Amino acid sequence: MKLLDSPLSAKTLADFGVDFRSGAVTAVETAHAMLARIDALEPGLRAFTHLDSQRALIQAEAIDKLWESRVDLGPLMGVPVAVKDIFSVDGTPTRAGSRVQVEDLVAPQGHFITSLLQAGCVLLGKTTTTEFCLGGFNLTHPLPRNPCDSEVPRMTGGSSHGSAVAMAASLAGFTVGGDTGGSVRWPAALCGVTGFKFTSDRWELDGIFPLSPQMDSIGIFTADAHDAAFVEAALRRGPMRNPPQAHAITLALPRDHFMENLDTEVAECFAEAIARLRKAGARIIGVPMPEAAEIDAVFAGLVPAELLAFLGRERLGRQWDLLDPVAASRIEQAFEMRADEYVRLTARKKVLEKLVAQRLAGVDALISPTVPMVPRPTAEFSTVEQVSAWNRLATQNTRPANLFNQCGISLPVHHLGSALPVGLQLCGAAGSDDLLLATARTVQDLLSIP
Amino acid sequence: MKLLDSPLSAKTLADFGVDFRSGAVTAVETAHAMLARIDALEPGLRAFTHLDSQRALIQAEAIDKLWESRVDLGPLMGVPVAVKDIFSVDGTPTRAGSRVQVEDLVAPQGHFITSLLQAGCVLLGKTTTTEFCLGGFNLTHPLPRNPCDSEVPRMTGGSSHGSAVAMAASLAGFTVGGDTGGSVRWPAALCGVTGFKFTSDRWELDGIFPLSPQMDSIGIFTADAHDAAFVEAALRRGPMRNPPQAHAITLALPRDHFMENLDTEVAECFAEAIARLRKAGARIIGVPMPEAAEIDAVFAGLVPAELLAFLGRERLGRQWDLLDPVAASRIEQAFEMRADEYVRLTARKKVLEKLVAQRLAGVDALISPTVPMVPRPTAEFSTVEQVSAWNRLATQNTRPANLFNQCGISLPVHHLGSALPVGLQLCGAAGSDDLLLATARTVQDLLSIP
Repeated sequence: MKLLDSPLSAKTLADFGVDFRSGAVTAVETAHAMLARIDALEPGLRAFTHLDSQRALIQAEAIDKLWESRVDLGPLMGVPVAVKDIFSVDGTPTRAGSRVQVEDLVAPQGHFITSLLQAGCVLLGKTTTTEFCLGGFNLTHPLPRNPCDSEVPRMTGGSSHGSAVAMAASLAGFTVGGDTGGSVRWPAALCGVTGFKFTSDRWELDGIFPLSPQMDSIGIFTADAHDAAFVEAALRRGPMRNPPQAHAITLALPRDHFMENLDTEVAECFAEAIARLRKAGARIIGVPMPEAAEIDAVFAGLVPAELLAFLGRERLGRQWDLLDPVAASRIEQAFEMRADEYVRLTARKKVLEKLVAQRLAGVDALISPTVPMVPRPTAEFSTVEQVSAWNRLATQNTRPANLFNQCGISLPVHHLGSALPVGLQLCGAAGSDDLLLATARTVQDLLSIP
Repeated sequence: MKLLDSPLSAKTLADFGVDFRSGAVTAVETAHAMLARIDALEPGLRAFTHLDSQRALIQAEAIDKLWESRVDLGPLMGVPVAVKDIFSVDGTPTRAGSRVQVEDLVAPQGHFITSLLQAGCVLLGKTTTTEFCLGGFNLTHPLPRNPCDSEVPRMTGGSSHGSAVAMAASLAGFTVGGDTGGSVRWPAALCGVTGFKFTSDRWELDGIFPLSPQMDSIGIFTADAHDAAFVEAALRRGPMRNPPQAHAITLALPRDHFMENLDTEVAECFAEAIARLRKAGARIIGVPMPEAAEIDAVFAGLVPAELLAFLGRERLGRQWDLLDPVAASRIEQAFEMRADEYVRLTARKKVLEKLVAQRLAGVDALISPTVPMVPRPTAEFSTVEQVSAWNRLATQNTRPANLFNQCGISLPVHHLGSALPVGLQLCGAAGSDDLLLATARTVQDLLSIP
């Protein structure tokens, strides 16, 4: 079987829209080509948990007929997408990456998926997640293959790694994930693609299997920042914001926390990125960020308690042995936690949100490496302790945006000095999603991200 | 000493505004007269924890001078007020009704008090609350005297009873309280005045000693519903909404929960009120309210955990013996509560809010007795068990509005068939505060509430 090029890999989503409307390509041709590519690559990648070719083709036919009948669903019409297996989609199973029986907990399809479908996206299937989105690696579940290295299987980051891998292999126009502590930006960084996390309350989170309702966010993986901005604007049904000039951008470089534990390649790519941005005229100012010292205490306390509440002690008690040991060890932490401690941490989260927002007033985005390390070989991880230590370190720079209620994006910058993927992170104020994406477009162009 | 009439008891706040602007009365004269009345009555009533005559007179002088200099602060200019001792007021102590040292926990003055002062209200002092607003009665703290009975000391309801008693005795133009489970509507009903609770998030709750941040609401005690609407509009800095015609009103009469455990007098007054409203043309429809069955489980679980988190185990451990036994027994319940149970109850609250809002769509207000019983003699209560049982029963009909995120008002209706105070409660949808007050004005007039 000959591997077909991705029908979208060489063009932006905007270009695809032009081709689709000119009749140069149809939704059915696009879906067919994408499904053929998935057939060829998926056995090696394992990015999908559920592929629904038949449904996708029927939907694509309908899209083509709609266009024939002069109905335009908007910029995303005919774009094939894949979504993480925590999004409820009418007619497809949702298992949240678990062997635990959770079908009765799955809510009906929610606003975000409905918006995608109403915008004319063609749904190819569901992508892999770690169990209940807890961290980046399960010891007893297969991990999708990170396309960054054809020799050595490497970590993909979590938990939306199916969507990250699918995007890295150009198996969709864009893919959808969820980000509670970095689970979009983290796999984006490790798989070498662009990953954008909306502000948590930008979308209602109904119809999404929850990990931590106060930190869960929706995210997208795209070919680059321009496509991310295109999708954001299309789903908002508004115009894209113009990217600012370099000299109009102010970025905050945190003095605390974010520059710790960096792999050499990461430090070098990041330093080069900062140097190029400065040279181009962007204003980069150092900011203290003492609030970051509380991230582990607050984040790690809140998340397992909220998941435990959702799943329920009784269900977990009955099916404890079905849990992957990594997930089990995270959930276990919540069993003894007291209510007043939870309330205290929640209140502290609100305080931290305000302090950080004040600290970043007047700044377009916080800039940092997305993940302190390049993707490690999976062979290095065989115990819960190893995985947990890696999880904690790998999300050092992504968890803050969830705790501080920010939007965030990771751009691939390994071309600045690393053989393995390295991500550059920009995080913006709550609700400033379109502004952050405009800034990211300028930054991408200044860094000549391919 | 001759007891002076209250300078406001015979007029509406709107009338006072006219008199003030015409020069018929000054803020200083009003404050003087009010302070003289307080001096005469307070020893018997014990409504205040802190009276600041000097500050009030200085403020009143300033108000008069402002008016002289042609500055109009708006409809509440010169109106004397008293606020519950959980509101932080710059320059006055806040003790939240407790002997436990909490000064370091008191936040700076918040939006609501600042709005009152900027609107020109003259602050007379702070009024009594039960310890940390937990329920209606403390065994080891003095209770304000309910003016409804000159012979027998009777329950005043809680926790804003100082403000309720002050209003019942006409010691201010209006008074301010807090309502987490009925603590404005409940004492309003038992003291025979009007008590209105805003939707919880109508005002930022900064500067208020918190009991349960997700249910705490600000409330006001006024002479009647017209004054309540006047204050609401003035603080909103907008117009009052016109009261609807009787036949334009639709009220929901709950079939479950709210009609249980009624004293005969309460049942009779309520039946008479319903009959009069029906006769006047108001539409009154029966609604099922199965959600009410969960009130005890959800409300009683959430509140103590949030208070415990705020006060902290360590502080309470050190000063446990300073707590009143009623407060101690409530707080104690939270010590063993788990985080996941708290999260589960919080999520359930959100679900109940939505279910009830759907159930009441198209209805102007839910109507019920405010409190199932008339004010009991305090002599009947000498144990924690007795007080707790009474608390639970007395808030049967008020807690729902806090749990379901509604605004609510209690109107005095004992003139319809009781020698002792009886309240009629109307509860409206979240954020419909001005609509509820307009409806309440019509209901008040239809029932000829004096």
